[in-house]
Amino acid sequence: MISIPKGTKDMLPRDAAAWHYVEQKARETAALFSFREIRTPMFEHTELFTRGVGETTDIVTKEMYTFEDKGGRSMTLRPEGTAGVARAFIENGLGQDVMPMKAYYLASVFRYERPQSGRLREHHQFGVELYGSSSPYADAEVISLAHTFLSSVGIGGLTLHLNSIGCKECRPKFNAALRGYIGDNLDRMCGKCRERFDKNPLRILDCKEEKCREIVKAAPSITDFLCDDCRAHFEQLQGILERQGVPFVVDPSVVRGLDYYTRTVFEFVSEDIGAQGTVCGGGRYDGLVEEVGGKSTPAVGFGLGLERLLLVLQNTGRLDAPRERADVYLAPLGERAAGEVPAIAAGLRRAGVSADYDMMGRGVKAQMKYADKSGARFVVVIGDNELESGAAVLKNMDTGEERSVALGDIAGALK
Amino acid sequence: MISIPKGTKDMLPRDAAAWHYVEQKARETAALFSFREIRTPMFEHTELFTRGVGETTDIVTKEMYTFEDKGGRSMTLRPEGTAGVARAFIENGLGQDVMPMKAYYLASVFRYERPQSGRLREHHQFGVELYGSSSPYADAEVISLAHTFLSSVGIGGLTLHLNSIGCKECRPKFNAALRGYIGDNLDRMCGKCRERFDKNPLRILDCKEEKCREIVKAAPSITDFLCDDCRAHFEQLQGILERQGVPFVVDPSVVRGLDYYTRTVFEFVSEDIGAQGTVCGGGRYDGLVEEVGGKSTPAVGFGLGLERLLLVLQNTGRLDAPRERADVYLAPLGERAAGEVPAIAAGLRRAGVSADYDMMGRGVKAQMKYADKSGARFVVVIGDNELESGAAVLKNMDTGEERSVALGDIAGALK
Repeated sequence: MISIPKGTKDMLPRDAAAWHYVEQKARETAALFSFREIRTPMFEHTELFTRGVGETTDIVTKEMYTFEDKGGRSMTLRPEGTAGVARAFIENGLGQDVMPMKAYYLASVFRYERPQSGRLREHHQFGVELYGSSSPYADAEVISLAHTFLSSVGIGGLTLHLNSIGCKECRPKFNAALRGYIGDNLDRMCGKCRERFDKNPLRILDCKEEKCREIVKAAPSITDFLCDDCRAHFEQLQGILERQGVPFVVDPSVVRGLDYYTRTVFEFVSEDIGAQGTVCGGGRYDGLVEEVGGKSTPAVGFGLGLERLLLVLQNTGRLDAPRERADVYLAPLGERAAGEVPAIAAGLRRAGVSADYDMMGRGVKAQMKYADKSGARFVVVIGDNELESGAAVLKNMDTGEERSVALGDIAGALK
Repeated sequence: MISIPKGTKDMLPRDAAAWHYVEQKARETAALFSFREIRTPMFEHTELFTRGVGETTDIVTKEMYTFEDKGGRSMTLRPEGTAGVARAFIENGLGQDVMPMKAYYLASVFRYERPQSGRLREHHQFGVELYGSSSPYADAEVISLAHTFLSSVGIGGLTLHLNSIGCKECRPKFNAALRGYIGDNLDRMCGKCRERFDKNPLRILDCKEEKCREIVKAAPSITDFLCDDCRAHFEQLQGILERQGVPFVVDPSVVRGLDYYTRTVFEFVSEDIGAQGTVCGGGRYDGLVEEVGGKSTPAVGFGLGLERLLLVLQNTGRLDAPRERADVYLAPLGERAAGEVPAIAAGLRRAGVSADYDMMGRGVKAQMKYADKSGARFVVVIGDNELESGAAVLKNMDTGEERSVALGDIAGALK
């Protein structure tokens, strides 16, 4: 018996309705905001991620699926969605097309995580990217899209945590002040934070350890160090979100894990998920396109894990996915009916009616059981009598109601 | 500059409509036939494919993306969709669920092909699988689904080529007769056919070399060797397809490339594609589930490459994908309007109207150009006057027609 690779999951036909529900909401919301889908290859040259995601990140140092192809080139299954979009943007000259580029993706991403952390090695993300505008209107557009999507699927107790982490002008000054403050307290902090102190002190701010959080409470706030441009940008963004009716709290502890962020960073946190309740995170990454070889291009976006979202919706009973059902199940009795039913089904399908029928040679009881389990809305039992008279009984499987229909016009009777 | 991996392609936002068109048709057709979606991981243990696809096939010997994960296990990006579904069927005990299992997938598959052959290393397939029924009704269901899908997207000059390659009872007798006939002519055949002679003589029948085709013309026909059960199955299948209005020709040269087929094999060939015009191929593979470790389970299905299908539809001008457009583009003039427009857009989106607006600080001319290029149906220009009067001009971008609308009820005016 060959098993599924550790840390991956099958989506079974019986779960398809839930997936279709959230994916359809994602597509509809993206369309409302005039974002169009983009798809990039499942793997890219490894260098794209070392440069785009950042060589010191956990993703690049520990979690990538990297392999050599038969031509000896180093390839990596994409660990996130943004770097591939940046590469596609540059390579296809999309900057010369209508700008801004407003794109979304629904894509598998791959990270070699320890299975005990409850994370999947292949998971699915809904992400959006807005390229070409440095205006806070662009940040608001992306945040507003996430807010609309999360509200539409019914995630409860949602709070938007908003921050600005400045730019290459003002962040170094903050980093210096932060190091000054943290340095005095470093011996009381966790091992990870001590590592972060040199490489990326900003990330100390979102450490989840209680003792570190205590110390961080009194740390200097990035908002006091923003340069005039970054401050104006952040204030404008807040004003736009207020006008759009998107509630938020300013939260200086939000810094995000990836190297590429500049200015705006945000997380949507839900009460439904418990302590680490982030359902969606994103921000601005004005340096990314240049970093992976293109012309300097402002960019903002978010990514959102669909497995996690589905889990929360299921656990809180908020999943409102309609069951996927056949309109009608045709139950043939006897050989003559078995021979007629495929043609009747073909006619129904031509009329846009979804139809199913027996291919197991079952008796009427077993067929009714199948029709019930598979979720058909209506059942028509067809035997010699029905073929002779040209009429049969149409049974509504939800109400039990029965009525007579002409075999030649089942489609009409279902309208 | 980091380039896309050789043999892979981006799907750009401007091409999304075409993809959505064919994928939506695939989903709708699957639903008409009561098939539900299944998704399996992008990679599987390599053994699944060596056993499921066949150790001597081109796919397994030359074309797989195989790599070791960080745990030292040999993994392979799926080179086709069927083996993963068989594994999922077994592992999740779907045989104990409602049977038959009627499942479809829309999935990336990966083959390391020479780029000059015009084939992609990552391409997308629409495939269906019907597990649990050995009845010819099941074969007809799958074939009929493919026929309905291909007709619905508008592929022209379509012919279904149908064959039966028998079972483990009757095929050896045919192989012996075929070897007897071919043996006398082997020195006149191509190198590949000489290889096939020992390993898999059946595949000589679909060699595309002119000299081989000449010889094969007079070869014994599999249809003369079918055992009584296989013959009855094949004849019943033809009868059902006739009743369903699915035209076909019996073509003994159709044998398919994979090891796992039994009885029914078929190909849909289109005049639109030229000489090797197969758009869809499939058949029955009753031995597969057992081969990869499950209980013997009859199965039938097809796979269909979406890139190829899209190419044909585009080349023949039959692609009928509606353009993806915003309902309305809001063009703010001046700072005050720029501040109001995001809230107006938010209101429109809440009313289900897809809206777009400027985030580039453009003047009115550049905004009209953007609105036109991006495909917005309507444009509303909003400046100080409009804000004061509470009314603006709604311009239909297709007809040029203009009329006045209340700023507070643009959604109503678009209904």
